[in-house]
Amino acid sequence: MFENASRTELSSIGEFGLIDHLTKDILLQQNTVKGVGDDAAVIDQGNGKYTLVSTDMLIEGVHFDLSYFPLKHLGYKAITTNLSDIYAMNGTPKQVTVSVGLSNRFSLEAVEELYAGIRLACNQYKIDLVGGDTATAKQGLFISVTAIGEVESNKIVYRSGAKPLELVVVTGDLGAAYCGYQVLEREKRIFLDNPNAQPDLAGYDYIIERQLKPEARKDIVALLENLGVNPTSMIDISDGLASECFHLAKQSDVGITLYEEKVPIDPTTYNFARELELDPILTALSGGEDYELLMTITQQDYTKIENHPDFTVIGFVTESTEGMNLISKGGQKHPLKAQGWKAF
Amino acid sequence: MFENASRTELSSIGEFGLIDHLTKDILLQQNTVKGVGDDAAVIDQGNGKYTLVSTDMLIEGVHFDLSYFPLKHLGYKAITTNLSDIYAMNGTPKQVTVSVGLSNRFSLEAVEELYAGIRLACNQYKIDLVGGDTATAKQGLFISVTAIGEVESNKIVYRSGAKPLELVVVTGDLGAAYCGYQVLEREKRIFLDNPNAQPDLAGYDYIIERQLKPEARKDIVALLENLGVNPTSMIDISDGLASECFHLAKQSDVGITLYEEKVPIDPTTYNFARELELDPILTALSGGEDYELLMTITQQDYTKIENHPDFTVIGFVTESTEGMNLISKGGQKHPLKAQGWKAF
Repeated sequence: MFENASRTELSSIGEFGLIDHLTKDILLQQNTVKGVGDDAAVIDQGNGKYTLVSTDMLIEGVHFDLSYFPLKHLGYKAITTNLSDIYAMNGTPKQVTVSVGLSNRFSLEAVEELYAGIRLACNQYKIDLVGGDTATAKQGLFISVTAIGEVESNKIVYRSGAKPLELVVVTGDLGAAYCGYQVLEREKRIFLDNPNAQPDLAGYDYIIERQLKPEARKDIVALLENLGVNPTSMIDISDGLASECFHLAKQSDVGITLYEEKVPIDPTTYNFARELELDPILTALSGGEDYELLMTITQQDYTKIENHPDFTVIGFVTESTEGMNLISKGGQKHPLKAQGWKAF
Repeated sequence: MFENASRTELSSIGEFGLIDHLTKDILLQQNTVKGVGDDAAVIDQGNGKYTLVSTDMLIEGVHFDLSYFPLKHLGYKAITTNLSDIYAMNGTPKQVTVSVGLSNRFSLEAVEELYAGIRLACNQYKIDLVGGDTATAKQGLFISVTAIGEVESNKIVYRSGAKPLELVVVTGDLGAAYCGYQVLEREKRIFLDNPNAQPDLAGYDYIIERQLKPEARKDIVALLENLGVNPTSMIDISDGLASECFHLAKQSDVGITLYEEKVPIDPTTYNFARELELDPILTALSGGEDYELLMTITQQDYTKIENHPDFTVIGFVTESTEGMNLISKGGQKHPLKAQGWKAF
């Protein structure tokens, strides 16, 4: 069946290329306001409210490594990373469905651990677990989560609304989750070399927690409302700041210029990156899994967030002809590159 | 991590047992009307309409065998089987999200085939493909589909509304998809024994199509409306008639008595079951994957469907103390058993 005359390897097209390719020219025939191409799909309820739907998949050996990822944390992360997509539309997630495929290497007790994390996240974020499926797989573990939320139609924020001269703003700090991943991978290698070695994770709590138990920025949606800020575009940072900037810019048909010195990086992240002889800015630009929110705001809204510790202005929007740029600490302008952490 | 002091094998609890176990005592905190436990979750839009959400997973080697299941058909079936769950709530599906995990054994052309089937089903049923994910897996192929639909809140039909003395009604005919599966498995064995053998599928078109390209009963929801029939409970037949009767009975706290001679079985199904030396009624009771609708209606509604070729009355609802029964062609009363096809 797979011995076609012409065979194109999936690796030659890349993940984003593949989705684009498979879903291009899709005809929308129903009450769908936005299909593929944003953080969540948008469906019109016809009463001034939109339903938001986002779905994601986690695959063992690709997205997580159970040799150091506790199942309870995995369950928690599977939920929060999906909720993050709903918040990125300025919406409120309300329900999730969870489908789990797993081999018989897993015991009932192991699945209970996974669900303990799922249920903890649901309680923490006031989300109803409303459905799902548990099926036997021949190998491994994979989890598919769909999050459902709501937003008033006049409050929704897409990736596509950024305009030249607006400000690029990010919440929290970046690069920590990637560094946490590197700590855990390092300890795993040490353990494989010497099974009697004790893990040395002291001092790395913050970056490890950002990797193993990421939170979604539920608070930001409420904060934006309270501060009276209406972002013109928004996306969550799952693949690294640079990659997300490219998504916003492409959907909005603009360019973006970032200032390296403005990108918020926690001292633990900074120091660990130095330990690895990595430029700390790379952990933020290409690390991913931070689940912070990246948005653009008008200059008029600047004073509302100016002194707020949760928001940092890191750049500005330009005409698309200006392209994507990063101004280094030395004041040099470099082209911004959208490479995921795999390119490190 | 899995070397717990106590280890319970998943096989000891069973699929339904596992889902029940993992989702029991779930607290609903949002606008959820119905969570786990029906064909779809039900969410109140607050405007007289409910959003319906159903999710399902297909795993290679468990739910399908690519040695005879064409990828285009698989894509089609992944969609229609999910839509069936929305129709079973008397609702209208409008959107789907599709997540696909697959190994690099698959070429781009293979994934295009899969999506050709997905898109064909979406066009056929007027469904918007609004999101999803495509990720690399270490092995195999799995597909997770979430269907989203809508129903007016006064039209929704749950599994739980059946009352004693009501009639048990089924659409279409049963057992064909299971027989189609058996034909395909038989031809596969012959081919493995003798790779030069040509498949002999003549005369089996109907049952093979029921297995490889099942349709969801979109027409029934419209028909019920036109006929003025309000089912008191409904479920789709994915696991076999007997198993679905048990679900309806349990959720409605009633018993059900079926008449063997009333269960609609197509002649092709009947003859093929005979060829296999199987009692044809077993293909209907335990075969599954028919994606017909099983419902209960009041006696007042009987005359409305009495002569309609799409509906067959196959039994009646009793008090729960009567239990689950099957009246054989000889008039004997037997306890109805809910065994899936794996028990054959």
